[in-house]
Amino acid sequence: MAMASTSKLFFIFVLFIFRIDPNSSYEQHPLDPLSPEELDLTRTIVKDSFPSSNTTTLTFHYVGLDEPDKSFVRSWLAKPTKTPPPRRALAITRFNKQTHEFIIDLANRSIISKNVYAGYGYPTLGSDEQTEAIQLPLKYEPFIESIRNRGLNLSAIVCSAFTVGWFGEIRNRRVIKLQCFHMNNTVNLYLLPVEGIKIVVDLDEMKIIEYIDREKVPVPKSEGTDYRLSKQKPPLGPRINQAATIQPDGPGFQIDGHIIRWMNWVFHLSFDSRVGPVISVATIYDPEKQKHRSVLYRGHISELFVPYQDPTEEYYFKTFFDSGEFGFGQNTASLVPLVDCPNNAVFMDGYYAGPNGQPVKVPNVFCIFERHAGDIMWRHTELGIPDELITETRPEVSLVVRMVTVISNYDHILDWEFKPSGSINIQVGLSGILEVKATKYTHSDQIKEEVYGTFITDNTIGLHHDHFLSYRLDVDIDGVENSFIKHNLVAKTVTDNTTPRKSYWTVVSETAKTESEAKIRLGLEPAELVIANPNKKTKSGNSYGYRLIPGATARSLLLEDDYPQIRGAFTKYNVWVTPYNKSEKWAGGRYVDQSHGQDTLAVWSRRNREIDNKDIVLWYMIGIHHVPCQEDFPLMPTLSSGFELRPFNFFERSPVLKVIPPKPITWANCSASL
Amino acid sequence: MAMASTSKLFFIFVLFIFRIDPNSSYEQHPLDPLSPEELDLTRTIVKDSFPSSNTTTLTFHYVGLDEPDKSFVRSWLAKPTKTPPPRRALAITRFNKQTHEFIIDLANRSIISKNVYAGYGYPTLGSDEQTEAIQLPLKYEPFIESIRNRGLNLSAIVCSAFTVGWFGEIRNRRVIKLQCFHMNNTVNLYLLPVEGIKIVVDLDEMKIIEYIDREKVPVPKSEGTDYRLSKQKPPLGPRINQAATIQPDGPGFQIDGHIIRWMNWVFHLSFDSRVGPVISVATIYDPEKQKHRSVLYRGHISELFVPYQDPTEEYYFKTFFDSGEFGFGQNTASLVPLVDCPNNAVFMDGYYAGPNGQPVKVPNVFCIFERHAGDIMWRHTELGIPDELITETRPEVSLVVRMVTVISNYDHILDWEFKPSGSINIQVGLSGILEVKATKYTHSDQIKEEVYGTFITDNTIGLHHDHFLSYRLDVDIDGVENSFIKHNLVAKTVTDNTTPRKSYWTVVSETAKTESEAKIRLGLEPAELVIANPNKKTKSGNSYGYRLIPGATARSLLLEDDYPQIRGAFTKYNVWVTPYNKSEKWAGGRYVDQSHGQDTLAVWSRRNREIDNKDIVLWYMIGIHHVPCQEDFPLMPTLSSGFELRPFNFFERSPVLKVIPPKPITWANCSASL
Repeated sequence: MAMASTSKLFFIFVLFIFRIDPNSSYEQHPLDPLSPEELDLTRTIVKDSFPSSNTTTLTFHYVGLDEPDKSFVRSWLAKPTKTPPPRRALAITRFNKQTHEFIIDLANRSIISKNVYAGYGYPTLGSDEQTEAIQLPLKYEPFIESIRNRGLNLSAIVCSAFTVGWFGEIRNRRVIKLQCFHMNNTVNLYLLPVEGIKIVVDLDEMKIIEYIDREKVPVPKSEGTDYRLSKQKPPLGPRINQAATIQPDGPGFQIDGHIIRWMNWVFHLSFDSRVGPVISVATIYDPEKQKHRSVLYRGHISELFVPYQDPTEEYYFKTFFDSGEFGFGQNTASLVPLVDCPNNAVFMDGYYAGPNGQPVKVPNVFCIFERHAGDIMWRHTELGIPDELITETRPEVSLVVRMVTVISNYDHILDWEFKPSGSINIQVGLSGILEVKATKYTHSDQIKEEVYGTFITDNTIGLHHDHFLSYRLDVDIDGVENSFIKHNLVAKTVTDNTTPRKSYWTVVSETAKTESEAKIRLGLEPAELVIANPNKKTKSGNSYGYRLIPGATARSLLLEDDYPQIRGAFTKYNVWVTPYNKSEKWAGGRYVDQSHGQDTLAVWSRRNREIDNKDIVLWYMIGIHHVPCQEDFPLMPTLSSGFELRPFNFFERSPVLKVIPPKPITWANCSASL
Repeated sequence: MAMASTSKLFFIFVLFIFRIDPNSSYEQHPLDPLSPEELDLTRTIVKDSFPSSNTTTLTFHYVGLDEPDKSFVRSWLAKPTKTPPPRRALAITRFNKQTHEFIIDLANRSIISKNVYAGYGYPTLGSDEQTEAIQLPLKYEPFIESIRNRGLNLSAIVCSAFTVGWFGEIRNRRVIKLQCFHMNNTVNLYLLPVEGIKIVVDLDEMKIIEYIDREKVPVPKSEGTDYRLSKQKPPLGPRINQAATIQPDGPGFQIDGHIIRWMNWVFHLSFDSRVGPVISVATIYDPEKQKHRSVLYRGHISELFVPYQDPTEEYYFKTFFDSGEFGFGQNTASLVPLVDCPNNAVFMDGYYAGPNGQPVKVPNVFCIFERHAGDIMWRHTELGIPDELITETRPEVSLVVRMVTVISNYDHILDWEFKPSGSINIQVGLSGILEVKATKYTHSDQIKEEVYGTFITDNTIGLHHDHFLSYRLDVDIDGVENSFIKHNLVAKTVTDNTTPRKSYWTVVSETAKTESEAKIRLGLEPAELVIANPNKKTKSGNSYGYRLIPGATARSLLLEDDYPQIRGAFTKYNVWVTPYNKSEKWAGGRYVDQSHGQDTLAVWSRRNREIDNKDIVLWYMIGIHHVPCQEDFPLMPTLSSGFELRPFNFFERSPVLKVIPPKPITWANCSASL
């Protein structure tokens, strides 16, 4: 048994090396994700620490790199060695109804620390326990009776696991709720809820501990809900024209281990089972200084809070923290070549520890591609010089790193886009299936009560909800010590008759000294928000900086003292800035399932620490209020939102002025083959 | 002479037919732009209406289609004929210091109306008069003396024409101001202003009427300002990798005259010398109703207001209305294949009436291309069904219509993007060159006074300014009568202990009855803004609608009674809705040069007309506050902003569920040739 799993692991490891590390110039980067071998070693060490007879209840809920100190990484990067850096793992496990935290020294194969977590909240759910839990009702007599009572077919029932949140109650059990669906001639289960049944499962005991069948509501019809091409009835259409991107010189980027080099950018890309893609040590080449300069030490999703807005019995608790409760990384979808990513994409695999601690491979977890979208990097036509016409224009190109995570019904397309101009665009695309509630109504005219959503088709309400994605961005603008500056645009009135103008606006800059001064509700006051390095200035005397350019913004509308809002208090502001603290990674807290909101960005920030000329972390929230509409049925066309980090006096001048345009090419003799 | 110009015209006309109208199924669409023949006919008729001996001072400032009544167009479209529809031209001319307006019947070759405009404001500037005016200083002795005094080289001087605005003065002359630049070893004139000189030109008399040399300020150095590739000193870079899009079946769209058909969209594209691209009668195919349904009757830029924020002597008046004062259409740049538009783009030419009334051809004024940017139209991976893994995903594709307009220093990339899901994305990209002011300073530490901008390099201030683009969108959501609905998201408190939740939000919808109820400042209150057809409902009972999804927003910060703000009062709100009125096209007024703000969107709206269930027009403003930074020097990397119109219960269900994905193709045997 041990032999078999080792040889399987070895095979995976070989593939891993072959796929993404063909010509690595270093043995291991200090920020590399744990390799399958390291994951397995962690498992062995953790397992061996328990009495050997008794490890059947041991489950792994998070295993990831225990991030080395920033100072160590910086000095290692200044002088990288072929010798691997010290490597540590953080493992979070459940054993005998307790949450254990381990720090493992991988080189010495030893336990550095071991701790039982006794606070509120539980770790990220495992996939096995959910799979096991959702089968429980199918053998549970009262449920079978409920299904029979409704005239439904038990073999068409599929249940799904939902975290329960916290609403002030005292509870010391790790529980989830189940909702079941009648998946009749469709794979689109989420649109066919069996309403009126409350099922609570104790995960540690793996049994149903509460069951209430409250009321019967018709299950919506399954007709027209299946989204598979093979199930579509004619007429089909419209038809997408065939197209492919051809790059005669191959991709313009190189992948060396986890390091990606492209044009003027170099960054490290790793995979984490909780947050998905992590961009580290992103630097950009400065043509004047002839060196790479740091922009982002580490950036990733910190949490995704999705509060539904239906306060009634079976829905009030639906206030999910998708990243911390379910795990963005362990719920990824393997990307499908040619449709999830274009034909010129290169793919990378990822690994995480499964519930038993063994490495699980996610093939094609990332794709990386150059986007040639037909945009313009910069241009000018000069029409003002007599007898001369000048046109200079450069086509835009960008590098996209993509991962897709699927938390039950919703698909989240996470894109990091790098531009030669120094911009980083961070985008999320939402697709997938609405969370709906079944109803007796068959026409909106019948509805005289509050239904907490949009009536989207017969017997179906698409529930109101929000998507709040918090990004943790440990920016290092040409160095570690940075400041957060609000360049407020202030209207000025002219009263001294020196000018025919009565007014203008100017910039009144304000450096945030402490955390409270950096909490921003966007959209209310005009301001440019800049992360600057106050210690380094351009030749002209401007501090090096990067601007935050927000997209559309939204904030939580819940009462501040409402339980979900206490747990998701980071949604009160769009922007936060904190001093760097290695332990402050997840805006909703480390143990967010059933958390009481004691370990959140809002709580950390209450200390109102100093942030001026410090190592600071920028937290930005993408917020989307979602009022469903019929077009979201049965599968939602992608809705995108995002933000941009853009150089602001970081360079002496445009870093793309001297960009070398591609040679104009005409293609000939191409033939298509299937 | 007459012969020569006729034969030249004929040649142009033949080319026109050949280029964009190869297989037209109709003779002429009622919304087609004036053909070169029609432009020339208009010129002849207008010219003949004046005493023949005296037409040397006759100049043409606008000639365009006099739009037929909407009811006529709609009935024509319902039953198109091969017979051309009646065609009328609107011509605005200057003759003997007067502004004349003509409506011409082109079929009958007759004048329908002729009118002398006696109100405030002047028509769009002509190119010839600007070219003539900017030469005046070079032969003007005091200016030559000023240049000599500054030790500059007269042969390197290039001047540029600037509209003067209106600041409460009484003036009955058509004047502009000139600013001159010392274009020393560069083509980047705008970065090298010769400061301290005021030059006022009377355009009708074509002479300098005021000249003041107030002070000497050093001209910034020209070194490093040239943006041409041929002038860049090594090291160059980074290098853009070669890439091209291949479409084995050719483009997926057809151009038939001015009608463009692509996937489920059909729309009309025309060119106007004032506003540039005009999208008309855009309809989308509804697979359930098996017919095309109307979305947008007519959409185009209405005005671009660019107020600079420097109230001092030589800068206070810089409050430009780029569309109405200079003309987006007559200042377009011919698009450069492979760099302004991708290799799979198709180009169209445009024509406008030059200052003498003769047609001027702009080759490649539009490009149209399918964007395959690597995005995802929709997707879902189903992980929740035991023992089954389902992944369905469709690649995104969109159709882009692009024009670039260049008003002196700034380049505006105007994109209309259509998606199969029904979305229309309207984007503007800003590139080009900053408007700067020369200064004595060589380091920002020296600056102890307000300089109204960012010190971006030696002797150079990049001035604060705004870009406010007003779009006029005559939406027709499946019919002419529409309403504007604010779906306000309102927080509700739960107090009756029926639920553990304390709060949620819900939608409280509000239909704007009159214009004042539809003026919106975005970002202050959460709401979904929808144009709906209250007369037509989905089977579920929801009104057909389209949502407006704003991008980043900004509004003018000027005092309401400041003169530029009176003229550009449309910048006080991001959204306005008016009842359809054929004459209300340009948010800053028809005669915006030196206007007094009496003919603007803000004034029209004061009547507070009814807009509920009427033929309504949506006005959306893209707003960008621009605090320059060093990266904007010497040429600004594109900064983009925009907004989306997206179906909201317009369809019964997702219109792209049954989209036919492209066959996966692998390309072989391609060879590149230069």
